[in-house]
Amino acid sequence: MSAGLAWIAVDWGTSALRAWGLDAGGSVVQSARSDRGMGQLAPEGFEPALLELVGDWLPEGIVTQVVVCGMAGARQGWVEAPYAAVPCAPTGDGVMQAPTRDPRLSVRILSGLSQAAPADVMRGEETQVAGLLATRPKFDGIVLLPGTHTKWVHVSAGEVVSFRSFMTGELFALLSTQSVLRHSLGAETPDLAAFDAAVAATLSRPERMAAELFSIRAADLLLGQPGGAAWGRLAGLLIGAELAATRAYWLGQQLAVLDNGAQADLYARALEAQGAVILREAAAAMTLAGLKAAHARLTEA
Amino acid sequence: MSAGLAWIAVDWGTSALRAWGLDAGGSVVQSARSDRGMGQLAPEGFEPALLELVGDWLPEGIVTQVVVCGMAGARQGWVEAPYAAVPCAPTGDGVMQAPTRDPRLSVRILSGLSQAAPADVMRGEETQVAGLLATRPKFDGIVLLPGTHTKWVHVSAGEVVSFRSFMTGELFALLSTQSVLRHSLGAETPDLAAFDAAVAATLSRPERMAAELFSIRAADLLLGQPGGAAWGRLAGLLIGAELAATRAYWLGQQLAVLDNGAQADLYARALEAQGAVILREAAAAMTLAGLKAAHARLTEA
Repeated sequence: MSAGLAWIAVDWGTSALRAWGLDAGGSVVQSARSDRGMGQLAPEGFEPALLELVGDWLPEGIVTQVVVCGMAGARQGWVEAPYAAVPCAPTGDGVMQAPTRDPRLSVRILSGLSQAAPADVMRGEETQVAGLLATRPKFDGIVLLPGTHTKWVHVSAGEVVSFRSFMTGELFALLSTQSVLRHSLGAETPDLAAFDAAVAATLSRPERMAAELFSIRAADLLLGQPGGAAWGRLAGLLIGAELAATRAYWLGQQLAVLDNGAQADLYARALEAQGAVILREAAAAMTLAGLKAAHARLTEA
Repeated sequence: MSAGLAWIAVDWGTSALRAWGLDAGGSVVQSARSDRGMGQLAPEGFEPALLELVGDWLPEGIVTQVVVCGMAGARQGWVEAPYAAVPCAPTGDGVMQAPTRDPRLSVRILSGLSQAAPADVMRGEETQVAGLLATRPKFDGIVLLPGTHTKWVHVSAGEVVSFRSFMTGELFALLSTQSVLRHSLGAETPDLAAFDAAVAATLSRPERMAAELFSIRAADLLLGQPGGAAWGRLAGLLIGAELAATRAYWLGQQLAVLDNGAQADLYARALEAQGAVILREAAAAMTLAGLKAAHARLTEA
């Protein structure tokens, strides 16, 4: 067990699981992570996976509250936490008690958000948006969450108004590791000038994305284009096409980018080249802030 | 050995190998195929793979000419047959003798085509274009060759003027089998109304492709969209974006589609909805016709 532990915050994604132990004042007294993501677990596997990670933290004889966000609440997860429909607060009233055997545990899973038209869903990102609003209560504008499925979230008056998801991260991963382009993308330093040029090309003429992808391979075969330039072109073509599709989200809007590393750097670079002014916050810190806000609300209730 | 065999035509692609034995009049007297494509062979593996397929056809004591098109001439193939640069005849003067040990064989590999700007290459499709021109010598217009990397080829006065390649086929394969969308694409009958609507969406606004892909997943989760509709939407979004990028190639042009089955049907459907008039020829027949034309030219020389 862990001295001072009051409750546990968990971010349970498709490919990983992260837990923080917090004291009554909200300070982190423990943290741990594992690769036992939702993608590899059957419903009955979630409690053992959680206990493997945090079992040693739990005091005997009392019930420790656990608040979970992310894919653990998906239909194929621990227990389905139905989506809350926008417009609504980012972590709305939706919460689902998960079935548990260990008497030391009480686990609640936060709902994701859904949008009817255009059809869209999120699970986990809503908690990061809640964290941003807990940190900056007056924020009004667009939150960009780079990832496998990047999200653009319009926030106003403390609510999520609308959002759109883009498969840009997954497309980049598939094209760079599974397609014919994998032969042409090197491990060299990414060429940011090639990235900038490709963003400009597809931002102004998004149909170029389809036309230019194979040219990355051809330019390698014919001209010996370096792998770093190929990498920059591929990333730029995809991100430029996404920016063309999201112009209404970022043009003239207050913009916060949740920082997950290199991918957020590329989005920020492309947006700043268009004159956007960007606020950056660390994605993991926003997840924890959002889980704390949800715990506070659940404790009050 | 095979009575009447005069020479052998071979189409050697990345994933398969197809051979025809022809008599002096150009009639097919033998045919065979195997899955020993260029992708799985080292340079020294090509001759054994060919002999495995056609060795029994070869008369003893004389040399049989073999004419090969496709990826066997790539840098990682049997021997590199350098690209011929457009504008030029579809199977130009480029041909490379492959190294062989068996005294019964003389193998020549046809060159592919290259284009400097925009950078582009093809290997194999040029032989199909040559076959179309052998069949219809006066053809002047655009040849569309659907495939993993679909090609649009502008032909005029017997030459390839320019061309563009699109990764649409490979993108569809990756997205439908490797991405999150695989969960939502069923084996049901493709929904052609969903296909038509998606083509129209990205043809008029190509930036929608990036925006709409994830909606295919969300519409399944939220609305139980059938797998056939998801399939149609994915195919339509990709093909519509390609048509947006190739408008100058197909608008008001004479158009021939080389028919490889279901994929060609979708392109033809989308183009006909835009008022295009399409000539269709079977892709395999055009390959053989192109190899015959190349053999005739090599024999004359």
